[in-house]
Amino acid sequence: MKVGDRWFRAVWWEQTGVGYIDQRLLPHRFELSVASSTAEVASAIKNMAIRGAPTIGVMAAYGLALASRNHEDFEATYGILNSTRPTAVNLKFGLDAVAPYYSEPHTALEAARAHDDAEVAAAEKIGEHGSALISRGATVSTHCNAGWLAAQDWGTALSPVYKSVESGNNVTVIVDETRPRLQGSRLTAWELAQYGIPHRVIADGATASLLLRGEIDIVITGADRIAANGDAANKIGTYPLALAAREAGVPFYIAAPTSTIDLTVASGDAIPIEERDDDEVLYVEGLTAEGELARVRVAPQESEAVNPAFDVTPAALITGLITDAGIVEASVDGVSSALRN
Amino acid sequence: MKVGDRWFRAVWWEQTGVGYIDQRLLPHRFELSVASSTAEVASAIKNMAIRGAPTIGVMAAYGLALASRNHEDFEATYGILNSTRPTAVNLKFGLDAVAPYYSEPHTALEAARAHDDAEVAAAEKIGEHGSALISRGATVSTHCNAGWLAAQDWGTALSPVYKSVESGNNVTVIVDETRPRLQGSRLTAWELAQYGIPHRVIADGATASLLLRGEIDIVITGADRIAANGDAANKIGTYPLALAAREAGVPFYIAAPTSTIDLTVASGDAIPIEERDDDEVLYVEGLTAEGELARVRVAPQESEAVNPAFDVTPAALITGLITDAGIVEASVDGVSSALRN
Repeated sequence: MKVGDRWFRAVWWEQTGVGYIDQRLLPHRFELSVASSTAEVASAIKNMAIRGAPTIGVMAAYGLALASRNHEDFEATYGILNSTRPTAVNLKFGLDAVAPYYSEPHTALEAARAHDDAEVAAAEKIGEHGSALISRGATVSTHCNAGWLAAQDWGTALSPVYKSVESGNNVTVIVDETRPRLQGSRLTAWELAQYGIPHRVIADGATASLLLRGEIDIVITGADRIAANGDAANKIGTYPLALAAREAGVPFYIAAPTSTIDLTVASGDAIPIEERDDDEVLYVEGLTAEGELARVRVAPQESEAVNPAFDVTPAALITGLITDAGIVEASVDGVSSALRN
Repeated sequence: MKVGDRWFRAVWWEQTGVGYIDQRLLPHRFELSVASSTAEVASAIKNMAIRGAPTIGVMAAYGLALASRNHEDFEATYGILNSTRPTAVNLKFGLDAVAPYYSEPHTALEAARAHDDAEVAAAEKIGEHGSALISRGATVSTHCNAGWLAAQDWGTALSPVYKSVESGNNVTVIVDETRPRLQGSRLTAWELAQYGIPHRVIADGATASLLLRGEIDIVITGADRIAANGDAANKIGTYPLALAAREAGVPFYIAAPTSTIDLTVASGDAIPIEERDDDEVLYVEGLTAEGELARVRVAPQESEAVNPAFDVTPAALITGLITDAGIVEASVDGVSSALRN
């Protein structure tokens, strides 16, 4: 997608390594960086310089191609990259797209590029299918960032919004700020501002009452892993949003490429949930009045936190899954039909 | 309650005006201040230097006593103080406790003191009734700050916790950070840390999955206004917490003095909901590494917010109301029986 007058994907291949937009600095600074070793690729994924399930998978794929070119040990590299984050299944999917060609660096890079292009094509398809759900002048609610930064291009949850806007629709987006890391207020708001799409940032606890008051027409979020039965793990706070949507009678959709589906887990209970550092809850990062990036502590020095990074939304709360293979029911049948198409 | 080795209420009478703990600076700085004019009292309520429904009512009562001593015009003063914040009914309750004696400054002050003491007695009673609901070793979840800072002493939602701990119980508290103003991570965590009560701060969107995993035994929040049918307005984010508690089969209680009940509103729909400034969502305040208080912007400069300060939890989601008059059903019958006792 465009930033100013240039086109970007979230991560890309460069001669010196894997290029990426450092998402930790957004929306305040737009800085490009390059990970030129396995350690730097792993660190960019782990410290969330890049994030979002499909983007993580592409970064890992390019990371493996980079290690192939550097003649690093396959097992060790695969292990390091695969253990960076536990919840998004796309990570392994990206690695496995490249692994068979590891001994041939050129082919490994071709495989990584093909995986990248396939994720972008999937994201665009999600937008084409999903935009049909967005009525004229609709207000869409979303959580976290499931835009192009999270999916290389187009996005997952935001792809239908972009496609709908491109077709001439006026869409307003209610953007959950998504504590603790504020991917909503930082990244989703930034993406929408780049495209001039009207949006309002909202505290995570406030969307439920907007839903109840009839001020939101549809909720669309992404997913980090979808189980065989349609349960979906996504950024913490998605599950209560789905509960609030059901209570208000507002449709709640999960948008994700079929690469997010993991048939090896029967239901959401089996999806590993990452616990992240207390400091993400106890501190907030932002821009000071002087234009400096600063981290401020919001809780007492003595206090500890609990910080699960994801939650699982049961299939029963999901109106449908918007995938590149079409919109399907969040169920065993729906999930398998998406994988068949 | 104690801060270090001194006892405090949230606000108090002084020779020069109405003293208060400036809650905007907590947990980072403990500073006492004095509002010595109607304008300063109104400003302390409006800018949330003091907050919490019962504390707002006591501040307003002392503010009216102060204006009486200064021979200010009654109608004008009452109007100014009554329009500081729209949602908490205790504001008017505090003013009306003093209004009949406005022409006699000494009696007006006596009335304000009596109102203050009555709120403290009510808060303690809430604790005595509510502590019976907290089992041995229980984990209690709460939202916003409904501790002694919000209710002069003891608290509303936290009063049962303090009483239970005083009786020797080990209680752990899960503290919703409560965006946008972070009264949970700033004030509730600070109160609990003062008393050495184990607690964990959590992002607002994360409590739902802890509830579902069976990690929370009971949810108790405060209320800013309770309608005649038991619907309760409280800090934004309370309603989705109540939804998540019901879904998980965990009891959800509202703790509030009977002064919070407003029989003039039949149901929650009629409670006015304050909309506050966008900046509360777009910025976060905290302490820098250098120990300075700073406000950082978290969203893009172009982005706007939507910031309802309260939501309404329907009576059907409330297991019971913990009042100074006992624990009653959230219903027309329950509310009237609390007022009769």
